[in-house]
Amino acid sequence: MPIKTPFVAVDGIIQLFDSNDNFQGIVLIERKNPPLGLAIPGGFVEIGESVEDALKREMKEETGLNVEIVRLLGVYSQPDRDPRFHTVSITFVCNGYGRPEAHSDAKEVKIFKLEDIPFDKLVFDHAKILKDYIMR
Amino acid sequence: MPIKTPFVAVDGIIQLFDSNDNFQGIVLIERKNPPLGLAIPGGFVEIGESVEDALKREMKEETGLNVEIVRLLGVYSQPDRDPRFHTVSITFVCNGYGRPEAHSDAKEVKIFKLEDIPFDKLVFDHAKILKDYIMR
Repeated sequence: MPIKTPFVAVDGIIQLFDSNDNFQGIVLIERKNPPLGLAIPGGFVEIGESVEDALKREMKEETGLNVEIVRLLGVYSQPDRDPRFHTVSITFVCNGYGRPEAHSDAKEVKIFKLEDIPFDKLVFDHAKILKDYIMR
Repeated sequence: MPIKTPFVAVDGIIQLFDSNDNFQGIVLIERKNPPLGLAIPGGFVEIGESVEDALKREMKEETGLNVEIVRLLGVYSQPDRDPRFHTVSITFVCNGYGRPEAHSDAKEVKIFKLEDIPFDKLVFDHAKILKDYIMR
């Protein structure tokens, strides 16, 4: 019997710091592909790479930033969280350094102070994930 | 381009308690299928179920125990951790109640006090996972 499981993705809440180590806010992307809207940067894990390596690769691909992982925030796996198919998101908090630039699936990269996050514009279950991040 | 990601599995470190709430030890299984050896109970997540539901289902299927999730221990994803194919394990700590019985992929169910775990008999990266559990 062939094994079938949900897809595995990684998402990263990037805490952006400037060159003086001042916190600038978190990095969100305006998605280029459906579902359209604002999202935490992320993407699918490739066969043969660890989730930590996938996270660093995806953050670099979508935002141009090098990141350091701070902690595992959680695993988000409700079957209806992704309207396309069942995706399990392994979500990390990380620190980013440098100047973000939109690439890959990101049409635009935006920085938000925590009190300015537009929760109603977030796709997937990213509003819930960001609330978990702020509350923990 | 079709999406291909590693398989997603859940594993559970079951802290077993008796009817007086005395801690009995943790539950490990002697595997029936390759790789043979001692393992933390676990299995693959099905499409359409959350990782928490998968964890409860797998613990019941392999050990006969009902479990309550205590916390997420970590996500283990080194590509070579499973000799068969790339599997990402989402590992939880949970409490189990009742009398364990071997079912499904478990040939035998065993209870170990933490100081008696035979680390050299564990398959996959379960020795590392159990060390993380004891140290955190």
